[in-house]
Amino acid sequence: MTTDELRESLYRDIPLSRAMQLAVRQADPACTVLAMPLAPNANHMNTVFGGSANTLAILATWSLLHLRLAADGKPCQIVIQHNTMHYLHPMPDAAEAVCRCDDDDAAWARFARTLARRGRARLTLHAEVHSAGRLCARFEGEFVAAHRPAAK
Amino acid sequence: MTTDELRESLYRDIPLSRAMQLAVRQADPACTVLAMPLAPNANHMNTVFGGSANTLAILATWSLLHLRLAADGKPCQIVIQHNTMHYLHPMPDAAEAVCRCDDDDAAWARFARTLARRGRARLTLHAEVHSAGRLCARFEGEFVAAHRPAAK
Repeated sequence: MTTDELRESLYRDIPLSRAMQLAVRQADPACTVLAMPLAPNANHMNTVFGGSANTLAILATWSLLHLRLAADGKPCQIVIQHNTMHYLHPMPDAAEAVCRCDDDDAAWARFARTLARRGRARLTLHAEVHSAGRLCARFEGEFVAAHRPAAK
Repeated sequence: MTTDELRESLYRDIPLSRAMQLAVRQADPACTVLAMPLAPNANHMNTVFGGSANTLAILATWSLLHLRLAADGKPCQIVIQHNTMHYLHPMPDAAEAVCRCDDDDAAWARFARTLARRGRARLTLHAEVHSAGRLCARFEGEFVAAHRPAAK
């Protein structure tokens, strides 16, 4: 999936991503980078609104899991179970969320084994949110993926 | 502040709240209730997108703190430090976030004393998110409030 295809799929399925003017900078199974401009995501102090930053990180982690499962030929329904966000610094400008996960990741290996065995598995992914060249927030999201039942 | 005034202030200061078609059902210093329709906040399964639900809860808790401090004649700058969200069930329709805090609340009393003494204090607030008559998510947010410096 190209960066344009991921953006169009998010714009179509999740209207809020369009309102945020989400951009996709990278859409690999090992790394997703999503960005958004300040204006549609600002707060009353003209920094990035926490809700927008949190949402950007949810979309970055969800997209990475979606892309990795698709690359493995295992399309799944993915549901978020829990998330936490630590806001470290105000974000004075456009923000970017980065989520990484590769095949060497031990948590991914456990997740893939459980999914293959049970058709359902749980994975925690992390994202960092940067603005103006500085790490401004850390996000953790726990997702459950389940194999889609075969079409009847 | 009336429900209309709170909605207009959020629409003006936080453009994302307008994109979510946020509605204010209650805007009291002891209870805020914010709502949003499904369509602009949907995901690919046509239930409420987690990022929208999380953002609704951030706005409900932030608004309650803002209204309580304003009612006490202590306008402050309020910054979110940390939040967690537990998604219990899919939200099949419009969602509503409810945040309550009253003068009997021991955490509020500690917060108000620290704010009066130091001009800065930290408070954890909770919100519940309901959809179709069911509790679907629990939110916790930690905020720091600081007295605004006097105008020069």
